Amino acid sequence: MLGHLINGTQAEYVRVPFADLSAHLLPDGLTDETAVLLADILPTAYEVGVLSGGVHPGDTVVVVGAGPVGLAVILTAQLYSPSRIIAVDLAPSRLEAAKQLGADVVADAVQEPEQLIADVTDGLGANVVIEAVGVPESFELCTRVVRPRGHVANIGVHGKPATLHLEDLWIKNVTISTGLVDTRSIPALLCMVASGRLPVSSLVTHTFGLGQIQEAYDVFSRPADTAALKVTLRKEQRYAA
Amino acid sequence: MLGHLINGTQAEYVRVPFADLSAHLLPDGLTDETAVLLADILPTAYEVGVLSGGVHPGDTVVVVGAGPVGLAVILTAQLYSPSRIIAVDLAPSRLEAAKQLGADVVADAVQEPEQLIADVTDGLGANVVIEAVGVPESFELCTRVVRPRGHVANIGVHGKPATLHLEDLWIKNVTISTGLVDTRSIPALLCMVASGRLPVSSLVTHTFGLGQIQEAYDVFSRPADTAALKVTLRKEQRYAA
Amino acid sequence: MLGHLINGTQAEYVRVPFADLSAHLLPDGLTDETAVLLADILPTAYEVGVLSGGVHPGDTVVVVGAGPVGLAVILTAQLYSPSRIIAVDLAPSRLEAAKQLGADVVADAVQEPEQLIADVTDGLGANVVIEAVGVPESFELCTRVVRPRGHVANIGVHGKPATLHLEDLWIKNVTISTGLVDTRSIPALLCMVASGRLPVSSLVTHTFGLGQIQEAYDVFSRPADTAALKVTLRKEQRYAA
Amino acid sequence: MLGHLINGTQAEYVRVPFADLSAHLLPDGLTDETAVLLADILPTAYEVGVLSGGVHPGDTVVVVGAGPVGLAVILTAQLYSPSRIIAVDLAPSRLEAAKQLGADVVADAVQEPEQLIADVTDGLGANVVIEAVGVPESFELCTRVVRPRGHVANIGVHGKPATLHLEDLWIKNVTISTGLVDTRSIPALLCMVASGRLPVSSLVTHTFGLGQIQEAYDVFSRPADTAALKVTLRKEQRYAA
Repeated sequence: MLGHLINGTQAEYVRVPFADLSAHLLPDGLTDETAVLLADILPTAYEVGVLSGGVHPGDTVVVVGAGPVGLAVILTAQLYSPSRIIAVDLAPSRLEAAKQLGADVVADAVQEPEQLIADVTDGLGANVVIEAVGVPESFELCTRVVRPRGHVANIGVHGKPATLHLEDLWIKNVTISTGLVDTRSIPALLCMVASGRLPVSSLVTHTFGLGQIQEAYDVFSRPADTAALKVTLRKEQRYAA
Repeated sequence: MLGHLINGTQAEYVRVPFADLSAHLLPDGLTDETAVLLADILPTAYEVGVLSGGVHPGDTVVVVGAGPVGLAVILTAQLYSPSRIIAVDLAPSRLEAAKQLGADVVADAVQEPEQLIADVTDGLGANVVIEAVGVPESFELCTRVVRPRGHVANIGVHGKPATLHLEDLWIKNVTISTGLVDTRSIPALLCMVASGRLPVSSLVTHTFGLGQIQEAYDVFSRPADTAALKVTLRKEQRYAA
Repeated sequence: MLGHLINGTQAEYVRVPFADLSAHLLPDGLTDETAVLLADILPTAYEVGVLSGGVHPGDTVVVVGAGPVGLAVILTAQLYSPSRIIAVDLAPSRLEAAKQLGADVVADAVQEPEQLIADVTDGLGANVVIEAVGVPESFELCTRVVRPRGHVANIGVHGKPATLHLEDLWIKNVTISTGLVDTRSIPALLCMVASGRLPVSSLVTHTFGLGQIQEAYDVFSRPADTAALKVTLRKEQRYAA
Repeated sequence: MLGHLINGTQAEYVRVPFADLSAHLLPDGLTDETAVLLADILPTAYEVGVLSGGVHPGDTVVVVGAGPVGLAVILTAQLYSPSRIIAVDLAPSRLEAAKQLGADVVADAVQEPEQLIADVTDGLGANVVIEAVGVPESFELCTRVVRPRGHVANIGVHGKPATLHLEDLWIKNVTISTGLVDTRSIPALLCMVASGRLPVSSLVTHTFGLGQIQEAYDVFSRPADTAALKVTLRKEQRYAA
């Protein structure tokens, strides 16, 4: 609820009720910039995308949206050794980041990735398709590129309805899941980040002091220009991008 | 594919390729009228509705559509001891049949069953909602009455798209599944029908000879008048409704 | 830990640390004698026996031991509609109770139930076998009567080792599980007991006042003579068997 | 059954009934020496060890026995990104091979690996323990080093019973599974071997012609001296170790 129904959590101090129920001991050597990723985007990507989607070794996985959460999906999906991860986005800088974090194939969202996905899967489509954008077009793309018996896992926060083509899907044995992270995976993720098995630090591209918050939001709002992925704020004012 | 992409299977004889792979020995005492239900509607209802939907003991289950497949859902859902089965349909005769086959609550589809379902579930909605109609309105009703962490299992054959209200659903941890029967459940169902644990015979309300096929279709097309559920045809001409 | 590592919980009052985390609101109309069954034997039987064992509709289930926990297995296994429940015990009175609570077949433990189980399963053995005694002989019987791909769920509290015939079992795709109840099933069980779907009250055969505790233990220790299943104690002294 | 109940399958030619049901198209570039591993040890290790054992990202996995099947477990377990794989064996050459194929820690079986496993798991034991030897001592070791809620997956072919210490295990929520490969995983494994994600070729240490079969068996029978892992035979006589 913090930051969603309860405002003000970019203050210097926040009182969190029942915080002892969701506090974790950070392993030595973990920087604050890395640790903060474990509070939201990493468990969100892993639980709502990879685990709900049921990625298995050998699968073809499509990730629609290569923003911070989509990139965290690309990182954590590799824990299940898919044969191939295909990232779809509009921004070349994000597709480049996707490649560096482990995507095998990247596809420009405007150039109809359906054909590319069909080509690399013998026309079958992907086993698991993960939506990390939150607009009808990207969700509908997911339902077009999933194979029979495949899974579409929605992570995106949507503001309006999508069209569900049941006239095609009713016979395809497709599963669609939605969800919000419950952070049950934080202990396992912490352990893997600490041991170096999840190289997440490159997700944080910029760090600002709290006093530079306007600039931070500006940088974050123009990822195509700034190549911003995740931007962090520090209470101390001495940090800069 | 028989009857879908391959025409003519209401002929006296049909050659079925690889039929040995899907033939089952009928237990003694099973009538043909009962056995024929195991070829399609019973495994469809059970596999695509009850098993895909994941009905558990204590659940509230909503079945939208009380035609033959919806009624078969009501019958087979009871194998998992839900606390409560709520049937939704337009036709009073079908709601009556639903009650006789085990529905605890029935609801007229035109009278907004949302409120009724909310009332009996403390406002949470149903654990499992099964669509057995195949029109956008009934699918959309399913997605409105499912509770967080619930499951919508679509059985209906749809001819056009539905609207998926992702602006409500993205946060609800809902799973939606579609599918076509693969009949893997026939051996278990046969065993339960033979031992009397699945009283399916009342699903067949009319039996006609092949020569009366026009009349049979007429009866089947007016269920509100004729109270027809499943209508069977026999090669022998001496049968009547 | 109460009653196991912490003594004295048959006192009039017990202080239970963190009790708010495991307290449940009792539905109206539930007697204390029924409610107390939900604190241990019913969730133990259901979670460690029925759920761990993975009972499915149509299964053959063998329950070895028809004491209170075994009888609670017989009751709760029916929530999954097995085709057949076979109860094995030494005491005729307990086999009689097993029949009344839903066992389809009962077998005297001294008369080699293997043959009987083979006969009713076409020589395959049972899908799920549940151990509710706690001695090597009964556990070993379980591993002899389980079918390939079947499951042996151990509930019994054992004091010494058993022999595991891996020379037979290694090739049989068998799963063996052990465990202690964690009571996650209490809400669902409460709901089913309250609605009359789990007729558990006959498990309590005797009720004594705390002052009659010696007599209560004596009755409980001679089930063959007294037909005692579960014996309850009440703080008020005015109750009698 | 071939080679188990049916003799003679090291002949130049073998007639295999229904062979079309279990034939797979080999991808280009796969050598015969690699392909033959997919007929048995790789799917056995993966299905009966890794999949039955339920390896998850972050787990500690212990593999008892680092012969060819145990090494194939070490290879395929990595598909699920465990935090740590601990290999146990008697032969230093096999522990060396285990390290090269991905074991993080190796332990000499005679030097009580319990303490080592306890040390690296904060005293909890391993999440998944896989038996790949087939003698009572190694199976019993598995049941001592598994943590509460852990899984012991037996692959070993056993000739005599083991002792199951139920007096310790009944309360530990442990699952034990046995099984024989059914080869359902061959398509996925083939795909991963072909794409280089499963570097299995080093499992074959020696290749002989059929005419050198006595020598081949001699080499295979003295792994401590010869460092033999898997030995293959070729119909052509011109191959040597």
